[in-house]
Amino acid sequence: MGKIKIITIGREYASGGRAVGKLISEKLGIPFYNKEILHMAAENLNMSAEDVKYADETAANSLLYSMSLMSNLSMGTTLPINDRIYIEEREVIKKLAQQGPCVIVGRCADSILRDIRDDVLNVFIYADSESRAKRAVEEYGESPESVYQSLRKHDKKRSTYYNLNTGQKWGAKDNYDLCLNSAKIGIEMCADSIIHMASNM
Amino acid sequence: MGKIKIITIGREYASGGRAVGKLISEKLGIPFYNKEILHMAAENLNMSAEDVKYADETAANSLLYSMSLMSNLSMGTTLPINDRIYIEEREVIKKLAQQGPCVIVGRCADSILRDIRDDVLNVFIYADSESRAKRAVEEYGESPESVYQSLRKHDKKRSTYYNLNTGQKWGAKDNYDLCLNSAKIGIEMCADSIIHMASNM
Repeated sequence: MGKIKIITIGREYASGGRAVGKLISEKLGIPFYNKEILHMAAENLNMSAEDVKYADETAANSLLYSMSLMSNLSMGTTLPINDRIYIEEREVIKKLAQQGPCVIVGRCADSILRDIRDDVLNVFIYADSESRAKRAVEEYGESPESVYQSLRKHDKKRSTYYNLNTGQKWGAKDNYDLCLNSAKIGIEMCADSIIHMASNM
Repeated sequence: MGKIKIITIGREYASGGRAVGKLISEKLGIPFYNKEILHMAAENLNMSAEDVKYADETAANSLLYSMSLMSNLSMGTTLPINDRIYIEEREVIKKLAQQGPCVIVGRCADSILRDIRDDVLNVFIYADSESRAKRAVEEYGESPESVYQSLRKHDKKRSTYYNLNTGQKWGAKDNYDLCLNSAKIGIEMCADSIIHMASNM
């Protein structure tokens, strides 16, 4: 790799952004982080994976659940649990970036590293709804009847998570260095192009 | 080139999108079209370059001027002059695309060719305002005092032109296959990456 050491990937649901990240990580032989970050944060907070997963999935949706978790864990803070998790994830991401080249998918990594590092390439992967619905049905086994609802639900969750935590707009191209339509460009070509750019900047 | 024959480039003002297009055209040895399209349309309409330039620049802003031009030219139609020009430009763009591989900058070419060809790669080039202001001052000789106003004015003109003519949103990533931040990626690397993708799809 050249000047760029860290590649962050934001992505619409079922656009194949995770697959693009995985490919880059394999081709470059560097670590890949996605859900792992949530698990590391949970460990640091002494929370069970179950609780973290539920808090993560209900973030900004269930104030009551957050409050109950907060009191159950007696964390000695008035911050809602999802904010506590986000703050811990932010520290995990900063630490991982310090450890060396890697690919980070999701978790607002672009925004978290923006002002503290200059060796980051921020990518967003998107695709038209039809292609994503096809992928969600074929690759994730979703039901064709509810797949468009599922796309909307997952994208809504991601945008809410990103917008609330960063104060910026999820998927707005100004937050990224490049945005690629995976349905047109293809997963493999997306990965190769990102590697080409990251290696020659 | 592979399956892709036509590369269209939309771009924010002073993002270097035109320079990216020029480079691609030179490296691939294929024609480059930008203002040329307006001139060809003018010729087809038997209008002077002056009148077309003025109508183009005041499009959707000066109904009175359009109406006066319309009556002066006695074109036997009730369409405003800017609509007449757009319709003619659309025909020019379709014809140019039929003639063989080329690069087309601006003029809603992405939208015009969307449903009639499957060998088009639609690119959008953007950059942060600071980088664009720097480019506008250094490359276009604009005044540092008014350069941010100039960015807003030119982008507003482009978005109005695109949005009114296509019914879609200028710069919204869903209209493009890839969007590149030229300030981060660099003009040369933008051109090389686009060529790489277009050649291997």
